[in-house]
Amino acid sequence: MTPSEKSNPGEPKLDSAVNQWLGNSDVLIVGGGAAGISAAIDAASAGASVLVLELASTYGGTTALSAGEIYIGGEGGTPAQRANGFEDTTEDMFNYLMMASGPNADESKVRMYSEDAIGHFDWLVEQGLIFNEKFIPEKTIIPESDACLIYTGNEEAYPFSSVANPIPRGHNLAVKGDVGGKQLMDTLYKRAIELGVNFTFDARVLTLITNSKGSVCGAVARIDGEECCFGTEGGVILCAGGFTMNRAMLEKHAPDLLRCNEFLGTPGDNGAGIQMGWGAGAEAINMHEGHVTLPFYPPASLVEGILINDKGQRFINEDSYHGRVGYFAMQQTGNRIYLICDSDSFERPSEFSGIEIAAAAETIAELEAELGLAENTLQNTVAVFNQQAEKGEDPLWHKHHKYLKPLKTAPYVALDCSIDSAFYPCFTLGGLNTLPSGEVLNPSGECISGLFAAGRNTCGLPRSGAGYSSGLSIADATFFGRKAGQSAAARRKNDLFG
Amino acid sequence: MTPSEKSNPGEPKLDSAVNQWLGNSDVLIVGGGAAGISAAIDAASAGASVLVLELASTYGGTTALSAGEIYIGGEGGTPAQRANGFEDTTEDMFNYLMMASGPNADESKVRMYSEDAIGHFDWLVEQGLIFNEKFIPEKTIIPESDACLIYTGNEEAYPFSSVANPIPRGHNLAVKGDVGGKQLMDTLYKRAIELGVNFTFDARVLTLITNSKGSVCGAVARIDGEECCFGTEGGVILCAGGFTMNRAMLEKHAPDLLRCNEFLGTPGDNGAGIQMGWGAGAEAINMHEGHVTLPFYPPASLVEGILINDKGQRFINEDSYHGRVGYFAMQQTGNRIYLICDSDSFERPSEFSGIEIAAAAETIAELEAELGLAENTLQNTVAVFNQQAEKGEDPLWHKHHKYLKPLKTAPYVALDCSIDSAFYPCFTLGGLNTLPSGEVLNPSGECISGLFAAGRNTCGLPRSGAGYSSGLSIADATFFGRKAGQSAAARRKNDLFG
Repeated sequence: MTPSEKSNPGEPKLDSAVNQWLGNSDVLIVGGGAAGISAAIDAASAGASVLVLELASTYGGTTALSAGEIYIGGEGGTPAQRANGFEDTTEDMFNYLMMASGPNADESKVRMYSEDAIGHFDWLVEQGLIFNEKFIPEKTIIPESDACLIYTGNEEAYPFSSVANPIPRGHNLAVKGDVGGKQLMDTLYKRAIELGVNFTFDARVLTLITNSKGSVCGAVARIDGEECCFGTEGGVILCAGGFTMNRAMLEKHAPDLLRCNEFLGTPGDNGAGIQMGWGAGAEAINMHEGHVTLPFYPPASLVEGILINDKGQRFINEDSYHGRVGYFAMQQTGNRIYLICDSDSFERPSEFSGIEIAAAAETIAELEAELGLAENTLQNTVAVFNQQAEKGEDPLWHKHHKYLKPLKTAPYVALDCSIDSAFYPCFTLGGLNTLPSGEVLNPSGECISGLFAAGRNTCGLPRSGAGYSSGLSIADATFFGRKAGQSAAARRKNDLFG
Repeated sequence: MTPSEKSNPGEPKLDSAVNQWLGNSDVLIVGGGAAGISAAIDAASAGASVLVLELASTYGGTTALSAGEIYIGGEGGTPAQRANGFEDTTEDMFNYLMMASGPNADESKVRMYSEDAIGHFDWLVEQGLIFNEKFIPEKTIIPESDACLIYTGNEEAYPFSSVANPIPRGHNLAVKGDVGGKQLMDTLYKRAIELGVNFTFDARVLTLITNSKGSVCGAVARIDGEECCFGTEGGVILCAGGFTMNRAMLEKHAPDLLRCNEFLGTPGDNGAGIQMGWGAGAEAINMHEGHVTLPFYPPASLVEGILINDKGQRFINEDSYHGRVGYFAMQQTGNRIYLICDSDSFERPSEFSGIEIAAAAETIAELEAELGLAENTLQNTVAVFNQQAEKGEDPLWHKHHKYLKPLKTAPYVALDCSIDSAFYPCFTLGGLNTLPSGEVLNPSGECISGLFAAGRNTCGLPRSGAGYSSGLSIADATFFGRKAGQSAAARRKNDLFG
């Protein structure tokens, strides 16, 4: 999809200016994606009445468009991890996630999730999600089978492998192909309905409502052309997605992402939830970060090739996760990126990768010339790589020995992974700053009374394009969505009985 | 200096809660640095009464600590440019500044400054600043003589040289050494005093004051232990500096800068001005960006060396400005950065650079081994560089021919420019989003009534570490400070006569 321009929601409306309340619920949730429905389930389970206002004509959000991978581990592992001999520990998961989250990691969220992801897995199963114990050890992006467990990050890749035991933590539902996200949302929605959660679709939330004390106590939504006011005692939970689809916000906050050629999300990822938070005094952080990916594998044999920039230099261990590869590809000076393979490692890239053959030649020298690279640049890079790979070493980039093979079987092929030709999809990672409880913070670090948020509306677990691991967004949305639902439900009780 | 933790200013105070007003001025300015005093001069010149509240015991801010370089050009050039045969054009200046500002450039500010920098130069001279017409063509950072004109950016370096005719635009006052900033501030302060501007020092502004319509109408300052309220009809202008000295804000918004080992600013650069803006509903942008520099030259002959990372790869044209070099050094995977020289190019680096000799050897192969680099990495890099330099070419990085010489006279020296040992100073480039008029914007792009800002309190002309050019901050602070002063003064008049 392509980001579009749109107008911004303004300041909150004062409750004294509300003429008529169309409804009132203990907890009011903006957005019916993974974060919103997880929040709704836990709020309703705690006895709260819940209304979900959703912009689209149905539930699901961006999660429903995804493969539905969820990043889970720690604490001895999930059934799928244990069945395949992986003994995951909370400390390994914590260390991995801290590095993956980058310099702006939220240690409290990483700690809480590492300690309770297994409990969250049990909750997902209780809601009706089905996971089997099948494992795919090969490097892939989305399983074509119904297998559960895959590596969806840099666990086996340097430097991550030096801080944590490499364990696969990507969990897919027991469903074939990349339709897991739809099934995940169908299941959670069904559960929410069973619990009595109310949904209003085609409801564009325009702004929050605050009372004279500055507490958030409702929201205004446009429904059937009418502006309708909804009140709440527990609080509003903003689960309205990121800002991937708002071109003006990308230009202002994450202009580098505009170099990408596919923007992953629904039209609802328009930043409105972040803007409503701003209107209520919230702080947004990490707004420049995004997940950019270059899905140059599968087939996994391509990982045996070497990635080079327009100077003929390697710039990453090629066994890194495709998101990390995309991040570093974008950091190179110049747009041209090539994957150099020999005939042993070469296979046709997937169709969706957009990667075409740029050149093929009998020698690396000819390949270098065909690509228009400066003399001896690619030749030197390949010579050094081969010399080291022959010894089973990659002292420069620490590529895993599984994929470390000298390139020496002619013909040689250069695959065009350039930023202006290959598939470079992205989504945003910046958003409202929240506590693990889902409470939204202002720039002074104070909680905004009555306001909660979760999912890509917030800056959550995943914070760095250089370390993004697939499944982290749904893990973050469902886990911290639940926390927000619990917090809002408890706040209502505190109000009533406190 | 070292960033420190500090508490944050809270929400604005309501004017109805003010018991006593200690003073009232047409224009109230927070901060007596270059932005604040320039704003004061133009507000007072327009007939407004002006009060400047300054945290420190004297005026000057971070500008007074600097060399006082100002980036000026366009429109046919300054006297110093013309005297040295440089015909600067507005379009060249615009094209240079747009590239230097990076993907988040503010075209309206760049356009306005490019079109009116010469007029601003005349204004600076009118205030009493003295510039001579001497020019230093060599690559330097701060002139040791009293010369005026130097290159303070990437004007001669690729890719900037491909979009704009290379013209020097750094202007120093006619004063020896790096004390120009103090003289600049002395002169502007004297002028402000002549115009009747009032200054209160040792005044820590705590928060803004707003009226029932939401307009900013004053500020609360702690003076001699008392909280004092100051009212204003024209508006408050926040000129309180950046957040370089606030460790908590750096951790949250610009964590990469914490890898630096020197933080440039005064204790006033604590982010309080940005936080007061947030409290009034303002938006801050570009908060992750900073100017990081690796001042590896002078002596200029060192630019003839080649900079490499821990893979033995070059990563920048070494004739780039030291700020751009610092930016790319920080982007390399790994902390180790070396400058490789032969005995023709080698000279001792300046003492303040913190750069020591890491290794010296009779051959590049020995140097490579001494540095512990992988075999053939540095050797290949030097071989390719030399082969191309012999032909007067640098097809990889486009180093300027002035500095392009093969490294072939033994012994060879590696200078240690690593991030954990050399001098890497920094300051922040993110801040409040403003119009060229100085009006502060909220996230919806609406002006906050009565609130203006300038200098590093805002995100102004300089926006990208990759393109930072010295003199841009003072240019930005003085030029857009003046605009803010004019706007606030005009607002008062509009209120009175409009």
